Amino acid sequence: MNAADLRLPVDVPSTALFTDRYELTMLQAALRSGTADRRSVFEVFTRRLPEGRRYGVVAGTGRVLDAVENFRFDSGVLDFLAAQRIVDEPTLAWLADYRFRGDIRGYPEGEVYFPGSPILRVEGTFAEAVLLETVILSILNHDSAVAAAASRMAVAAGDRPLIEMGARRTHELAAVAAARAAYVGGFTSTSDLAAGFRYSIPTVGTSAHAFTLLHDSERDAFTAQVDSLGGGTTLLVDTYDVTEAVRTAVEIAGPELGAVRIDSGDLLLLAHRVRQQLDDLGATKTKIVVTSDLDEYAIASLAAAPVDAYGVGTQLVTGSGHPTCSMVYKLVARADEAGPDAPLRPVAKKSMGGKTSLGGRKWAARRPDAAGVAEAEVVGTGPVPPELADHQLITELVRGGEVVAREPLDAVRDRHAAARAGLPLSATQLSRGEPVLPTEYL
Amino acid sequence: MNAADLRLPVDVPSTALFTDRYELTMLQAALRSGTADRRSVFEVFTRRLPEGRRYGVVAGTGRVLDAVENFRFDSGVLDFLAAQRIVDEPTLAWLADYRFRGDIRGYPEGEVYFPGSPILRVEGTFAEAVLLETVILSILNHDSAVAAAASRMAVAAGDRPLIEMGARRTHELAAVAAARAAYVGGFTSTSDLAAGFRYSIPTVGTSAHAFTLLHDSERDAFTAQVDSLGGGTTLLVDTYDVTEAVRTAVEIAGPELGAVRIDSGDLLLLAHRVRQQLDDLGATKTKIVVTSDLDEYAIASLAAAPVDAYGVGTQLVTGSGHPTCSMVYKLVARADEAGPDAPLRPVAKKSMGGKTSLGGRKWAARRPDAAGVAEAEVVGTGPVPPELADHQLITELVRGGEVVAREPLDAVRDRHAAARAGLPLSATQLSRGEPVLPTEYL
Repeated sequence: MNAADLRLPVDVPSTALFTDRYELTMLQAALRSGTADRRSVFEVFTRRLPEGRRYGVVAGTGRVLDAVENFRFDSGVLDFLAAQRIVDEPTLAWLADYRFRGDIRGYPEGEVYFPGSPILRVEGTFAEAVLLETVILSILNHDSAVAAAASRMAVAAGDRPLIEMGARRTHELAAVAAARAAYVGGFTSTSDLAAGFRYSIPTVGTSAHAFTLLHDSERDAFTAQVDSLGGGTTLLVDTYDVTEAVRTAVEIAGPELGAVRIDSGDLLLLAHRVRQQLDDLGATKTKIVVTSDLDEYAIASLAAAPVDAYGVGTQLVTGSGHPTCSMVYKLVARADEAGPDAPLRPVAKKSMGGKTSLGGRKWAARRPDAAGVAEAEVVGTGPVPPELADHQLITELVRGGEVVAREPLDAVRDRHAAARAGLPLSATQLSRGEPVLPTEYL
Repeated sequence: MNAADLRLPVDVPSTALFTDRYELTMLQAALRSGTADRRSVFEVFTRRLPEGRRYGVVAGTGRVLDAVENFRFDSGVLDFLAAQRIVDEPTLAWLADYRFRGDIRGYPEGEVYFPGSPILRVEGTFAEAVLLETVILSILNHDSAVAAAASRMAVAAGDRPLIEMGARRTHELAAVAAARAAYVGGFTSTSDLAAGFRYSIPTVGTSAHAFTLLHDSERDAFTAQVDSLGGGTTLLVDTYDVTEAVRTAVEIAGPELGAVRIDSGDLLLLAHRVRQQLDDLGATKTKIVVTSDLDEYAIASLAAAPVDAYGVGTQLVTGSGHPTCSMVYKLVARADEAGPDAPLRPVAKKSMGGKTSLGGRKWAARRPDAAGVAEAEVVGTGPVPPELADHQLITELVRGGEVVAREPLDAVRDRHAAARAGLPLSATQLSRGEPVLPTEYL
């Protein structure tokens, strides 16, 4: 499917407008002052994790690469910028030729991160790099927030599958990105067809209370569903009386019934009761899916209950209390003059107020202890110590404007599972705590 | 700009895929059981407001109308559904001809709402109405959450302008919708160029710390900005030392300097100090803009400070603690047989667990007291009492599939201001409390 075939309820013509106006006015002023071509290094990092969280999850990198490739100022955009007098004529001419020709390196998608981790580094002229701030942060802040919640839920769920079903609780396109981020974090499927279409994430779904209410009886509704979708379907059993519904469900679908879904009430109690009833009816392989305002704590509390799968909506797409990350995009080094070979000097904001940051282009490594478990996130600006050379985290993503690191989503998902498994065990505690690794600066 | 010119980092081809898979499987089963053509009424409502909130704000209705118009299953989508075996051949054939031909009525956008308010009502065959659940809820839940936060911030800010600058903290397209919802709630401008392009919301912006750091001195940076953007620009004064920066700023731009921006530190203290310094330098008309993790409480705490405008990001786009609403889309009435004239019967889920709802197609009115101040949200299923006839809230939005209620965003914004002004004064208290109006059922 070509992007040109889009029929979306927005008509923003390119990623170039996912940009704060000040990036263009800074560009204009820099073009005029002669500083626009100074080689510059911007880094994405956070000063802290959300309160109580043990680790962060890098997600959205693949979408960032798409956005950078599509960051072009076509005539529709230029006309808008001209009509609104957002920038002057020389700047419009410069934008018409824009495409990012610099380099991007960063943590590979799915990696975990900690305060100060240099998650992404954009290097090029000031002019070309400053324009990418907003779109890069939008994507990483959103997707990483969802992936972090998903990862915690995946830990809580253990081997049981997690179904993403939060589309109705977030912006319709944020939902597609959320399903993708959830998959990275360890979810197994999504209810969102757009996510299935766009990212080939497996989709699932059965029926709502409306379907039961549409029919003259629950029996009619179950019969209709089984006739059409087969006995392997999942029947929703809490529209009227759960016990009665389970009895009817097995009567209609037989003991081969795929699953029943419980969407309200005391899930712990109901799961036990329904399991007993299903077993008594001979439907020992019929699964139980629960789906009612779950978060990682509710999932964990159901660990001992006979539940086979969890459907999670609101709390997933809203990052389970932390709907965004606090990633920032900061100039950390720049040349004193234009030209690709001018030496870089570190720069950093210095006023009071806590928003200071560390200047200089950084490397990062995760130092293992003797047993191979990570013990520190090490970030530095000088040479990489030899003992950390094999533990570096930053990889090449874009070289001279060309994306060099596309990868399938399953590889990203596997990377996340491996990265999480390499952390100290306390990373998987749901209770509030400090980041599980300290960040050391060299 | 035609939607076909889109170059977005997603390539979902129509709003039809912003849909949970179960809507299509329910459709298939209903087509087979012969119930698909039963006339049905779905209503959107919430069972509660976010904890402590006094009122909700309906936002996104205009986007819902766009989404319904663009809800078509083209060949790309149908091929996907077929390849994934999501629905059977008869259902694919039905979908190929789909367009919504029913009616939609609801609270006009910008209105306030309360628990149980019938915010939107979709009426048509079960088949055509059930498919719209997810996309309608996505839009209303997201946009209303942002508008509610915006409305509280607008109350806190009083006559001072509010600048939306949260794009970097949320999904890049959610950001566009968030800027729109913020405008509805009372914001005056946005930093997001896509929102300016798509919805003609005024855009603003000046410079970041990176611009100062790019130059060899703060003086060079301020000179570059003023040379390029004029003395009316806003200079960012907290990269190094604020007092020094303000002195330099006025020296370069003169007392006609438009504004200074403070983005870190103790904003209350700094605002007073900077105002005094500006006045001493003769820059009595130079404004002070503050922008540092503001929410409605921080805005209110600065009410007595010499601040001229607030820039708000994270807390706006994340709904100030409530990033989504709990709106649901429920079947409340349906016919016993197919056909447009079959009588409707009320239906509702009845099991335990708190998720019950009131069946039947509803009207709603806001009853004023003798002084004209709203005193109750009245919702009923029978005839409208004569004394409430002139206070009804529901208007026609779509008739026979045709949108009949498009309106400019400024009209929506004005409606919200008027609706909020009609509530008891305690609606504007920021402290936690009960909904400011009780909902009465007749």
